[in-house]
Amino acid sequence: MAESMEQRRRRLLGPSLPTFYRNPVHAVRAKGVWLWDADGKQYLDCYNNVPHVGHCHPKVVEAITRQAKTLNTHTRYLSNLILDYVERLTGKLSADLQQAVLTCTGSEANDLAIRMAQRFTGNAGIIATDNTYHGNTALVSQLSSRHDPVGGRLGHIKRVPAPESASLSGEGVDTRHEAFAQHVQAAIDDLNEEGFGVGCFLFCPYFANEGFPSVERGFLDLAAGRVRGAGGILIADEVQPGFGRTGSHWWGHERIGVAPEIVTMGKPMANGHPVAAIVTRPDIMAAFRDTASYFNTFGGNPVSCAAALATLEVIEEESLVENARAVGEFMMDELGKLEHPLIAEARGSGFFLGIEFQKDGEPASGFVTEVVEEMRNRGILLGKTGRAGAVLKIRPPMPFSMENASQLVETLGAALKAVGDSDGD
Amino acid sequence: MAESMEQRRRRLLGPSLPTFYRNPVHAVRAKGVWLWDADGKQYLDCYNNVPHVGHCHPKVVEAITRQAKTLNTHTRYLSNLILDYVERLTGKLSADLQQAVLTCTGSEANDLAIRMAQRFTGNAGIIATDNTYHGNTALVSQLSSRHDPVGGRLGHIKRVPAPESASLSGEGVDTRHEAFAQHVQAAIDDLNEEGFGVGCFLFCPYFANEGFPSVERGFLDLAAGRVRGAGGILIADEVQPGFGRTGSHWWGHERIGVAPEIVTMGKPMANGHPVAAIVTRPDIMAAFRDTASYFNTFGGNPVSCAAALATLEVIEEESLVENARAVGEFMMDELGKLEHPLIAEARGSGFFLGIEFQKDGEPASGFVTEVVEEMRNRGILLGKTGRAGAVLKIRPPMPFSMENASQLVETLGAALKAVGDSDGD
Repeated sequence: MAESMEQRRRRLLGPSLPTFYRNPVHAVRAKGVWLWDADGKQYLDCYNNVPHVGHCHPKVVEAITRQAKTLNTHTRYLSNLILDYVERLTGKLSADLQQAVLTCTGSEANDLAIRMAQRFTGNAGIIATDNTYHGNTALVSQLSSRHDPVGGRLGHIKRVPAPESASLSGEGVDTRHEAFAQHVQAAIDDLNEEGFGVGCFLFCPYFANEGFPSVERGFLDLAAGRVRGAGGILIADEVQPGFGRTGSHWWGHERIGVAPEIVTMGKPMANGHPVAAIVTRPDIMAAFRDTASYFNTFGGNPVSCAAALATLEVIEEESLVENARAVGEFMMDELGKLEHPLIAEARGSGFFLGIEFQKDGEPASGFVTEVVEEMRNRGILLGKTGRAGAVLKIRPPMPFSMENASQLVETLGAALKAVGDSDGD
Repeated sequence: MAESMEQRRRRLLGPSLPTFYRNPVHAVRAKGVWLWDADGKQYLDCYNNVPHVGHCHPKVVEAITRQAKTLNTHTRYLSNLILDYVERLTGKLSADLQQAVLTCTGSEANDLAIRMAQRFTGNAGIIATDNTYHGNTALVSQLSSRHDPVGGRLGHIKRVPAPESASLSGEGVDTRHEAFAQHVQAAIDDLNEEGFGVGCFLFCPYFANEGFPSVERGFLDLAAGRVRGAGGILIADEVQPGFGRTGSHWWGHERIGVAPEIVTMGKPMANGHPVAAIVTRPDIMAAFRDTASYFNTFGGNPVSCAAALATLEVIEEESLVENARAVGEFMMDELGKLEHPLIAEARGSGFFLGIEFQKDGEPASGFVTEVVEEMRNRGILLGKTGRAGAVLKIRPPMPFSMENASQLVETLGAALKAVGDSDGD
């Protein structure tokens, strides 16, 4: 019998390789918000944030082609492309965040940002939330791995309950942000007691992997004050909310009203080309540069910069942040009208929306899995997230239209009905 | 006064950013083995290994363009491109190395390879040579950094003298490979004594950053036996010698006659597109996959795979390994005829050659710097390497011709005369 594609995949890539869906999609072509599989079936992409300005955007493809034909070297030669891009990028951030290092992946960016913070503060300690994901290097994977690494976990990483967590309450405090700050303070105390000191608090300002709980502007103020008071700095991981996805702001940290000392970014940055970055203050950059001969062979290469620059230009030229706001609002309204006994909350902003489902007060993760599968079969790509996997995750490419939104909501209504209301797996 | 390009670079990218040459090259265009700067000056590229099959090779550019236009997603959807590529790639390696993980950078590949080895062996300990470079993540940068990280160095990394080191002698042993094995044994003993155990020995089989000393086939046999005897495995970092650069073999580990359990690769793999990989045995892959939900957003994306596949095909179609052997031999012969009082040794293989210079028995690093600068001014791009920076490094793109080699050697002869014979800085 001929080897199936999935058997071949296991043979060549190994076991336990994650895919989406029970019946994985064999994607062969995509354009804008649409994707086609090998059988010619068409899908509305309501999930992928990497093709930020739309799959295979002609302007980005043209930039990659033109530059790949012309020159692709590294930053040990001079090039205007990286300078033009960094100038444009930093122009989108607070005035004190003026300098950047370009890497190839968000993992590299977070790994490096932590080392920058450590070098600048002189402290090793890292604080992060407890159901987050910041990448896959040996260092940053320890922030999310459920498995203890061989040799044991690093003692200088402390995790605090994320805002959606049931354990987010505190003694003698009334609000979640006070409770959060209390947990952060406990982590600070531990780090100081154990001699590590506080280097940084690394966070996704949208708490994306924690199911993006609705938090008020200012939620992090108290916690940020504690971190800074202890000598640490803030690193905002904008890999998910960055580049205008939330519709209301270019960056998640602007939305929540916090001013990080370091911002990291990745996925949507160059529409799928492997580009990521760390943006920070000159004094932090200098503290790092002066003690590390950091060089990244592929980081900031001319083709990557051309792709990133084209992506940034398309976001502006096509008013995609405004589109995310307008269509996101419409979609949120429409989602709010869906009726189903298991819907607990519809939430989010712009093109980062979710619906949390519960059955008898418990996360209905089995149900959400079924809805995602049902939607896939109906030609709509979606995912799920949150601690229990009970949040349906809607995160389409940015040119998603009102018409696309209507199609999504309509199909979702039908799928919810079809799946029923049980949470069985 | 208008801001200069270098001032703008410092303003946007920070201080202490490495460049080649006192007067850095502002590269704007390249093709094959040629590169042009903004003033239209033409350079013969005798240094860059990333554009492996030649700068801007039309077949690679075409593959990138075609795929970027069609689809660029990630490995959570099925794609034949990654499977086709991994099948071709593993076909170039020993039959037991059947499975691959694709990442974006060599740093990511080595970082992950170490974690795989740790997971498979159950031991945390890492052994590496003492003037090597394996990348820039928090973990692998500790193998080469001259600066102690904040919070101190990881105790489970042990470094042994590289084969070119003057300290490579041992008690009661006659040969360098016995002395090397003795140092490796000492590292093993330390790791065991300190409770870490032996996870892996990570090495560049060409000892590229250590100035690629001439070592005999079998040099690593004794050391490898010690590592394996202690429960560890071997990781060959092929980022520099891989993909046929040495002319004699596809991989550096074949050349030195050692069979690693894990092979990592990067730079030349996709001619400049950010692609890297770990190739290993199914049992090692399974041990890792079963305990880590590893996923790399950009790793193995269709565009990267198309670029890597095209690069592999060009190597074969244009017989570039054979070219590296033939032209490399010719070039080595010609370099051997150069006469200069400071030449200590000309060595290397294929398109990875070097000349070591000494003055009064000491490394003539100042002299080599001047030669590199002089060659740049004469339109030839070269670099230097080795512990003391006294080895002129010749590492051209693979389509380098006999004519290119003649031009290099002729110009080098003239430059050596012009620089004189002092080692002043």
